[in-house]
Amino acid sequence: MAEKLGFIGLGIMGLPMALNLRRAGFPLSVYNRTKSRTVPLKDAGAAICTSPKDVAANSDIIFICVSDTPDVNEVLFGKEGVAAGAKKGSVVVDMSTISPDSTRRFAADLKMAGIDMLDAPVSGGEAGAIAGSLSIMVGGKEEVCRRVLPFFQKLGKNIVLVGDHGAGQVAKACNQIVIAVTIEAVGEALLLAEKSGVSGHKVREALMGGFAGSKVLEVHGNRMLNDDYKPGFKAKLHRKDMGIVLDTAKNLQLPLPATTLVTLHMDEVIKSGDGELDSSAIFKALRKN
Amino acid sequence: MAEKLGFIGLGIMGLPMALNLRRAGFPLSVYNRTKSRTVPLKDAGAAICTSPKDVAANSDIIFICVSDTPDVNEVLFGKEGVAAGAKKGSVVVDMSTISPDSTRRFAADLKMAGIDMLDAPVSGGEAGAIAGSLSIMVGGKEEVCRRVLPFFQKLGKNIVLVGDHGAGQVAKACNQIVIAVTIEAVGEALLLAEKSGVSGHKVREALMGGFAGSKVLEVHGNRMLNDDYKPGFKAKLHRKDMGIVLDTAKNLQLPLPATTLVTLHMDEVIKSGDGELDSSAIFKALRKN
Repeated sequence: MAEKLGFIGLGIMGLPMALNLRRAGFPLSVYNRTKSRTVPLKDAGAAICTSPKDVAANSDIIFICVSDTPDVNEVLFGKEGVAAGAKKGSVVVDMSTISPDSTRRFAADLKMAGIDMLDAPVSGGEAGAIAGSLSIMVGGKEEVCRRVLPFFQKLGKNIVLVGDHGAGQVAKACNQIVIAVTIEAVGEALLLAEKSGVSGHKVREALMGGFAGSKVLEVHGNRMLNDDYKPGFKAKLHRKDMGIVLDTAKNLQLPLPATTLVTLHMDEVIKSGDGELDSSAIFKALRKN
Repeated sequence: MAEKLGFIGLGIMGLPMALNLRRAGFPLSVYNRTKSRTVPLKDAGAAICTSPKDVAANSDIIFICVSDTPDVNEVLFGKEGVAAGAKKGSVVVDMSTISPDSTRRFAADLKMAGIDMLDAPVSGGEAGAIAGSLSIMVGGKEEVCRRVLPFFQKLGKNIVLVGDHGAGQVAKACNQIVIAVTIEAVGEALLLAEKSGVSGHKVREALMGGFAGSKVLEVHGNRMLNDDYKPGFKAKLHRKDMGIVLDTAKNLQLPLPATTLVTLHMDEVIKSGDGELDSSAIFKALRKN
């Protein structure tokens, strides 16, 4: 019998992801705090529910894609939350980017109610969500991941079971570190070129394809050179993720010096009113110095 | 009439580069301070000279590949230097990684003697030098670059005229910034994974191909995960290049915070006796904290 799916959180990422699942033909119940966001799903034939609890009661596998750790906590364990409605043997798949530590706690609490959990944060932005080409970093049990895999395959391309509960969130934290610090790397380099009176476009061309080559040099480097910071991924959201990174590192008593430095630069970006721009707007902050 | 080539500096990079020029059939005169390094060139039919001056006297285009700014200064303007032997209309092609500011001065001084100059530092390491697949970042006049291009094409693949004198060195400085800071990015991320008890190999797999993807994640990330720091590019040489970067930035009154931070980490690597290892050994230093 076909698994019935639920989807909670129809934001910039969640809406196109839910649509991809529905358009692939799966039965789907959805919930979103702001009801107007459910219209495209209703048009596509999804059932609109009035609470996470209702979604859970109607579903075997419940996808969640909300903003931050407290939101996932509320969706799962609030009065009208998933835990209040989910059947034993159902699976919660949290695709939000949240704390790895909290994720492990949520998974343990759900397990006591007979509910399995995967953490499955994604990378690839709105464009990847629409195209169904996200990278999906999964934490949890292998057999549960195997059960959810056919649905992941409608959402993304590079799907990796990284490890046990929380490992997906750790991988996402690593992803955000690498992108943030590489943006800083490219920004400082292009700034040296600019101040030296040398074409940053030519420098980028010379560096691509060598050991300095990266997706960030290609994509974010281009944004910097064209002074065009249409997101992409907003600085304020990247900053939120860096908060998760630094909290996680702090709990491990692990200093991450470059990560900390770049987070300060993101704070400058946000303080100067550019939080809605792509996080490569760090280049604007560097330039002011 | 065929251009006669000269090559000064037969180190780890210079020797295979000179061999590639000779094996392509060009007449070649060479000089190296340590004479034993000239043997493979002699076997390949090159003329062995006793000074940079002699090389210059026998050549139309004189390639230089030595260690640092003072070495290039000595090769060019020392008592037995290139400037003492070079004909008017000859070209000096400096493939060393040195100061952009000094490069502009050298080019101006040579110009007064009727000698053209290109700065043409490379990226790609010993493997790229042997394979003839280096990236070559060129600074100087377009017509001079065009004259040297057929020879560059025996040495490298991605050959970019970045701008006027010094622009090749600026691009190389940018290249070294991006590689150094991206190594730090990948190192901090893989350390967070390790301390979280999550497989760094799986994290690398999940990140490759997304926005966090880079040549450094692929190559240097692998070195970190396998604890195998066979160079590659030695930490002590990368540190030397970072000195050029920071001097150049200082002259421009430009703060490069992440670049400065990573340079400190390279100093830790060298201080702990690991200067001969690949510069991704920064990961070892990060791990100690």
